[in-house]
Parts: sequence; structure tokens; C-alpha cells
Amino acid sequence: MTGLFETHRNLLADAMKAIEERGFWSAFSEVPRTYGEVLPVEGKAAFEALLDKPFALDQEADDGRVGGEVSPFGPPLGITYPRTGIDQLIARASAAASGWGQASIQARCGVALEVIARLNKASFLMAHAVEQTTGQAFAMAFQAGGPHAQDRALEAVAYAYREMTGIPRGDVAWDKPAGRNVIRLTKEFHLVPRGIGLVIACATFPTWNSYPAIFADLVTGNPVIVKPHPAVILPLAITVKIARQVLSEAGFDADVIQLAVDTPEAPVAQTLAVHPAIALVDFTGSSEFGGWLRDNVQGKPVFTEETGINTIVIDSTDDFSAMCQNIAFSLSLYSGQMCTTPQDIFVPRGGIETNEGHKSFDEVASGIAAAIDALLADPQRAAAVCGAIQNPATLERVAKASALGRVVRASTPVSGQEGARTATPLVLAVEAADEAAYLKEQFGPISFVVSCENATDAIDRATRAAKAKGGITAALYSRDDALIDAAVGLYAQAGAPLSVNLTGGIYVNQSAAFSDFHVTGANPAGNACLTDTAYVAQRFRVVCVRRPAAA
Amino acid sequence: MTGLFETHRNLLADAMKAIEERGFWSAFSEVPRTYGEVLPVEGKAAFEALLDKPFALDQEADDGRVGGEVSPFGPPLGITYPRTGIDQLIARASAAASGWGQASIQARCGVALEVIARLNKASFLMAHAVEQTTGQAFAMAFQAGGPHAQDRALEAVAYAYREMTGIPRGDVAWDKPAGRNVIRLTKEFHLVPRGIGLVIACATFPTWNSYPAIFADLVTGNPVIVKPHPAVILPLAITVKIARQVLSEAGFDADVIQLAVDTPEAPVAQTLAVHPAIALVDFTGSSEFGGWLRDNVQGKPVFTEETGINTIVIDSTDDFSAMCQNIAFSLSLYSGQMCTTPQDIFVPRGGIETNEGHKSFDEVASGIAAAIDALLADPQRAAAVCGAIQNPATLERVAKASALGRVVRASTPVSGQEGARTATPLVLAVEAADEAAYLKEQFGPISFVVSCENATDAIDRATRAAKAKGGITAALYSRDDALIDAAVGLYAQAGAPLSVNLTGGIYVNQSAAFSDFHVTGANPAGNACLTDTAYVAQRFRVVCVRRPAAA
Repeated sequence: MTGLFETHRNLLADAMKAIEERGFWSAFSEVPRTYGEVLPVEGKAAFEALLDKPFALDQEADDGRVGGEVSPFGPPLGITYPRTGIDQLIARASAAASGWGQASIQARCGVALEVIARLNKASFLMAHAVEQTTGQAFAMAFQAGGPHAQDRALEAVAYAYREMTGIPRGDVAWDKPAGRNVIRLTKEFHLVPRGIGLVIACATFPTWNSYPAIFADLVTGNPVIVKPHPAVILPLAITVKIARQVLSEAGFDADVIQLAVDTPEAPVAQTLAVHPAIALVDFTGSSEFGGWLRDNVQGKPVFTEETGINTIVIDSTDDFSAMCQNIAFSLSLYSGQMCTTPQDIFVPRGGIETNEGHKSFDEVASGIAAAIDALLADPQRAAAVCGAIQNPATLERVAKASALGRVVRASTPVSGQEGARTATPLVLAVEAADEAAYLKEQFGPISFVVSCENATDAIDRATRAAKAKGGITAALYSRDDALIDAAVGLYAQAGAPLSVNLTGGIYVNQSAAFSDFHVTGANPAGNACLTDTAYVAQRFRVVCVRRPAAA
Repeated sequence: MTGLFETHRNLLADAMKAIEERGFWSAFSEVPRTYGEVLPVEGKAAFEALLDKPFALDQEADDGRVGGEVSPFGPPLGITYPRTGIDQLIARASAAASGWGQASIQARCGVALEVIARLNKASFLMAHAVEQTTGQAFAMAFQAGGPHAQDRALEAVAYAYREMTGIPRGDVAWDKPAGRNVIRLTKEFHLVPRGIGLVIACATFPTWNSYPAIFADLVTGNPVIVKPHPAVILPLAITVKIARQVLSEAGFDADVIQLAVDTPEAPVAQTLAVHPAIALVDFTGSSEFGGWLRDNVQGKPVFTEETGINTIVIDSTDDFSAMCQNIAFSLSLYSGQMCTTPQDIFVPRGGIETNEGHKSFDEVASGIAAAIDALLADPQRAAAVCGAIQNPATLERVAKASALGRVVRASTPVSGQEGARTATPLVLAVEAADEAAYLKEQFGPISFVVSCENATDAIDRATRAAKAKGGITAALYSRDDALIDAAVGLYAQAGAPLSVNLTGGIYVNQSAAFSDFHVTGANPAGNACLTDTAYVAQRFRVVCVRRPAAA
């Protein structure tokens, strides 16, 4: 068991260094071709071998098999999963808890690191699984579902390892001078896991968003029940399967991690979340369900990444064309289905100053629209950027949204993707007063160019939106350093991470493990951050034992 | 402002080392005579000068003056305090928030350390204030109200400082290789305070139990509203006054810390706790109110230290006499009014093996009773150990409790303390089946010697009590190493810190800053720990700003 820890010791050491510095670092290559010729082929074959079959998971299922995943690109996957009842899940997790909780930090981290390493080797299988459930285009499914998610997992392991090993281990001498004598005690500090962790995953980034919780729970000694979205089960089924294999091989009870599949008709998340045996709850998804959890789950830590309204403020720019291209990509990527996608673009009604001279409000709006058109002109590139729409309800929302403002760019299907559920960005122009339209989250490829008084008004509206509705990202374009400096403090107060003047190959929707703190916890878009100390330090407790020192 | 930080830099460095090692360390002497001849005299005079007068606090009071403190030793204090209405408290804290939140970590820590240093110089004044409000005997009031509380404050500052300075400051380069190019961003990580902190203090240890929260909130940039118990205002009024002076001298708004006095007839804690402007709530006190807070305060961190049932298990001992003396002191100290005082002493019904041969159950019970009698035989020592009873309801509880079992030792007033509200320990013998009596918290000098099947049964009952009702301390006496080793894991699982075979000048009720984690958060006796990383890391958030690196 410590063998696994030794195997991955350097990886963990590098990750520990990365979380201290929080500059650029990545453990796993995001470039598919660096994985060689064989893995891509094997991954594709492994995925195809899973289709139209019962998924083989060595987990006791007392409640039949379920599974109705349908690819957003068309075909049903035809995969069923063993369904384990709630009582059974809790009983098995409880039975597995003691052995896992009492394992050494190194043993647990060794297992976690080995799981992550095997997930990395399975990145192509995972890419297909994520693509065909979430609708992400393959390149994104590979990166976000594979190496980027693995980086986030490793990041959580590093934080938890640092936190746990910060508590003194072994005998600590406590020698208190008392007059001419000394009172001598020996103290031991026992790390005690909280109990069973429940991780409720989302339908768009099933691995990236749930790995931090899964791995933080695991390495701090808590068994985990992984509850995937019923429409996006496969990526987490693969994850749980790999983790159970590593656990078994390392001599642990595989039920340290279990998959809790359910159906839209018979959901289990709420019942599990309030179950007294569940000690930790992690959730990624809608503010509606996040709010329910925060209101109803008492007496245990609840970590949420919810939704919000992400904004862009355009004051001025030194490169109008690059700015429009950058925004266009952010709006188009995965058809706006990222929790980091901008929704509201605030622009002064009098227009802005640029390297191309003055641009009116309409010229800014149409500049962005034209950049989207250019980006998506080639059907193959459009497909590679937009992917497909995960949830049919999102398509309906796009259709209805056209009435919410003046259409600057209409949403269309991605051409050449017949059979798939697709939609390119809808861009609407609205007035600042139309808050009912743009201050409501419109999940999907829907954005508003909002006409404001001026840049100050725009920043004020953007930061108020984050404070009131939550915001996971924010962007600002300006060539006025004083304005930027003033804005920085306002966005910080609103708890909205700010990206300034992004152009080229870096986008506001991207959040890099080991550097960007994803979700601040400082506005309604979520109460937890991937990953900071607070995220891991609550997952275990310290119990002190003290006794007279041996004479 | 950084001047204050420089002044106290070494103190903080020592504290940082201490929290890493968690062996014995103390910043402030607990021995009154080390403070010289002058300070005790000045402290006494300063206290007497406060009596029967309006307390001078430079805080705007829009709701008159209140104050009805009566010394448990007899006389009313005759002090009134300015009462500030809730709206005013919130408005002033909000107005003070921005300047304080934007101050540097060093500036805030410098202020906090200077406040702690001045509190140390005021330890004798504080001792009188704590004695005459809580009923603690002077020696304890000095230690627990003064240097020990200051140590706990410093400990919280050290944890918060370590956590905040663990986030990279200044410009962090993020250089991501992208094919033949490199994407270069500069990132800044802004620490953002949560908002206004509310600290609700208790009536028995007003400073020791509230300083960690007050100072953790302050150094992480949050203004604090301190809500003392209406019967024990003075110690925190002095604290707030000193803190406001230091803040003003350092150029900050004194309203960074405010006192919120109330009366039993018009309490403000609930209204403040659920106020949307309050971002952090800390509470020490009853499980009843703690439970109300945990159930009703949504969307913000709530840190509680509540109550529970502390236990002792006696399996066997190598020094029967020293064991009985140790337990007798623990039961008598401050007349059992510590959150750490044992309540239930589990003893095998067949008796125990000792260095004095076999002792029957009754002999163990009467041995403890006799040790209490011996400890309290001298009235002066009895007064110095027991102090007085803070709350009249505790006396009533003691009177009623006599009916809950067979009286092994009756509670009596402390002789020579006429006019004071006093009670020596009541010791009752009960059967294990009498759970209705001993598994209910009986706050005050009330303890039960519980007849159990055997040591295993005793440990089982003790750990189940901690799990079900909460437990802040636990003790075990045994000369069986195998039994101790097995017990350690069980107590750890129950979240109860365990003291084994304590004799001599160290007691289960004592919790040492920089070493003992007080309250584990792992059972119902509270959800927070003084002080661990989780306690401080939730009090601020990190917001990232990223922009293209300057070319």
C-alpha cells in the first residue's frame, strides 16, 4: 500500500509545490497526440465495447439495473448500470469505513494517486464517454473530462495531504514547567474522518466538477457514494470502476467508493443528502437544487458549486478584432453550457474607443456576432467548438429567449450535425432596464449585450449581478489602467474572479487547476472553492489523546 | 501600522512554531507574581473604579444604557453600558468594513497582536472582572480570563496568519506552453473578508471562549460585533474598549469592533445571527441555542462550542488515592461549571483492581467523595477551588438533582462564603439503566458514579454518550495497556479527546492553547475546534484577477 505512495511520491511533491505557487503547472498532458498511437485506438474500442450492454461493475445491486443515457449526438447508449438501494449503499459504505479510515494517510493517498494515474491512461475512453453523454466536442471532452479533471483531482489530494500532514503525528511531548517540577504528558493527535461522503455530480462536467470532492473525501478517510446525473452516468461509472479495482488490489474494501445510479422518476439525491449516515455533501448543479441542499441539509458540511450570471464589461480595447474573437469563442465553446460561460455583456450606450476608432454600441454587438459567424463558418470547426446540447430543455430555452431582446445574432443548428441536438449562440441586445431578461440565468448559448450608461455603470451592474445572483467568472476589457485598478477591488468584493483584456488562446471560461481558484464561495454561485484549504480541512477532525509521559 | 506588526513579529513567529509542533508553549505567564508588584494593585484599583458607574465606551449608543450584572459573590456591580441598536451596529460595522478589509494582513495582525499584548497588561483588571461576573475564584479568573484566553487569541491569529500568507501575494506568473508559443498571464490573488462577524459569548468563560472567534474574524478582515451574555458583560466590555483604542491609534475606524449589550428581556442574538449583513456567527453556550443557530442560520458559516456529557471510565489504577484526588479536583474546580467538567463516572459494578487491592464500586464512589471532602476541608481552599455559582438556576438544579440517585456526597455551600452563591459537588450513585438521570446534561457541580457491567461496557457507554449527546472531554483510568489501546480508537471515533491516567497537577478539564484541540467538531458538543485550520480558513475567500502579462 505504501508501495503506491512511493510510486507516486514525486507526482504528489510536484503538486504540493504547485499549490503553494499557483502559477502554471499541470500533471497530465492536455494534448492527445502526446499519448501515442495506441491509447486513442484502445480508448475508442473500449468505449464501443461498452455500448448496448450491461455495464460491468462489481458492486452489489439489490435494485435491478437502470440507465437511459442518450447521446446528444443522436443514438441511445444502450448501457444499463446496477442500481443499489439507499439502505444497501449506506450499509456497505459504513462497513467499509473503518478499514479505510484507519489506513495511513500515505496508504490512502497512494490509492488515490494510483486511481488518478489509471484515469489518465483511460483518458481516451473517458473522452468518448464524456462526449457521448454531455455533448462536449471530442477535443474538449478529452481535456475537461480527462487530464484537466485529473489535475483537479490531484490538486484536491495535494491540499488534503498538506492539511493532514500539518497535524503532528506520533508522540508529541508536552512538558509544562510547574514551579520546580515539570508536568510531562505525551499527546497523540488522531485524524478522524467525518463519515460517508455523498458527491452529487452534474450533467455537463461530470468528472471535472466531482473529482475534487471524491478525492478529497477519499484521502481524508471518508467512504464516498457517487451520485451521477441520470443522463450522464458513464463517465463516473468508469471512474468508480477504476477506483474499486485499485482499492481491491490494495487490499481495501471496494465499497469505499460506490456508484448510486438513479432515474429521473425515482431520484435519490435528496434522500441520501439528509440521511443521518451521510456526513459530507458535495454538489455541482443548479442553484435551485443547491439552495434546497443548503436549506435542508443540517449539521454537516455542504459544499456547492451552483450557477450564476457571468458578465463581461467592455470599456475600451486596443484590439477590437481580437477582443471580439475572444468573446465569440467564449460564447460558442460547448454552446455556452459551461458554468463559466459569460451571459451578460455590458457596453456603454455611447459606444467605446478602440484601436479601430470609435465603435458604437451596435457596432460592438455586431462585431461580436460577426466574430461568432466567422468562428463557426466552417461546419467542422463549428462542430468542434460547439459540440451538442446536453439537455433538450436548453434548446427550448434558446427558442424562447429570442423574444427577450433584439436579436443581434440568431441561434441556428450546427450545419452538418443532423441527428445531433445543436445550437450556435443567440445574441440579444437589451437595455439596462430589461433586468427581468438578462438578470435571470439563461443556461445555454444565450447572451445579452446590455446597453449601459457608461463603463462605471457597467461595472456597477456587473458586480451587483454577481453579488445578487452569483458569478463564477467575469471579464473586463479596458485600456484605462485607473479604471481597471478601481474595478479590481469591486469585483473582489463581489467575489467574482476577474479576467482582464483576454485575447488570443486564453478564455474567460477556462479555469486552470493548481492556479485558478474555481468558484470563490463569496457570492451565491456556490459556497465552496476548487480547491482551497477550507475545502479539505472540514473533511476530517482531530482528536487528541494525552497521557502521562513514560518516566 | 506595520510598526505594530514589527513590534510583535517575534511573538507571532513563536506562535506559528507552536501551532506546528503543538507541544507545550505559552506566550503569557499564568503565574500572577511574575507580573510584578504594581500591576496587581493597579488592576484592582481599575476594577473598583468601574463599579457603580456608567462604563466609558466610545461607541455610539442610540438605545440608552443597560446593565444588571450582579456578582455571584453578592453585590451588584452597578455598571451600565451603552446599548447600540441592531441597525446602528450593522450600519457602523458596514461603514468600518472596507478600510479594515483592505488593510494589509500585517497591519491587521499588528493591531490584533497589540490588542492581545494590552489585554495581557490588563490581566489583573480582567481577573477581577471575570471573578465578579462568572463566579470563578480569583486564581482561575486570572488564568482563564487573562493569559490563557490571550494564548487562545494568539493561537487564532497564528492560524489565520499562516492560512492567509499561504496564498501567494503579488504578481504570480502563469506561463502556459501552447505549441511553439507561451500564453502568459499575470495573476493576483485577493483575500476577501466574508463580512461582519457576530460573536455570541457565554457566561462562564467570556474571554477564553470568545477570543479565538473575535481575533480570527478581525485578522481575516471582518468587522466584529461582540454580544456578551447579559449577566457577564464587563470582561468583554473591557476587551472591546482596549481593541477600539488600539484600532483608533492605528488609524482605523474603531467600529471594526463593537459591543452589543442586551438584556434578558430584550435579547438580540437571534435577530443579529439571521441578519443578512452578518456573514459569520460564532457561539459558545448551550446546545439548545446552538441547535437553534445551526437550524436557523442559513448561508453563512456558524461555529459552535456547545455542551455535552463528559465522562470518566475507571477500569483500574496504580494509584487509587492520586486518582481520587485528581477526579475530586476536576469535579470541584469552579463548582463543575466548566464545559470540560466530567459528569458521568463509569465504574464496573464488581469494583476495580488498584495498588491498594480490590476496591468495590461503593469504595470507588466513596473514595472520590472523601477526596472531595479532603480537598474542600479548608474553607479558604474550598473558596479558591469552587468559586461561586454563576447562575441561580444552577443552584436549583443541584437541589433537584439529589433525587436522581443515591447521594454519595451531598452538595453544601462553601463555608465562610456567606452572601455568595456557592455549592460544592453533589455526587450520586446510579445504575447503568438510569440513563434518564445521567445521560441528560446536568450543568453544575453534579456528577454520577454509574454502575456498569465491566470496563468494556463502561467504555461503550461513555463513547456512546459522547456520540449521542456530545462530549468535550473524556478520561480513562486503567493499568491495562491493551484496554487503553483499544479504547483510544473508540474515543477517537466518538470525537472525544481522551485523557488517560491523569494524576497530580494536570486535570481532564484543562485545555491548553497551542496543544489541545478544544472541541473536536466530531460529536454534538460543537461543530468547531479551537483552533484548527478549518476554524480560520472559512473566514475569508480568495478572488483571482488575471490579465495578460506585460510584454
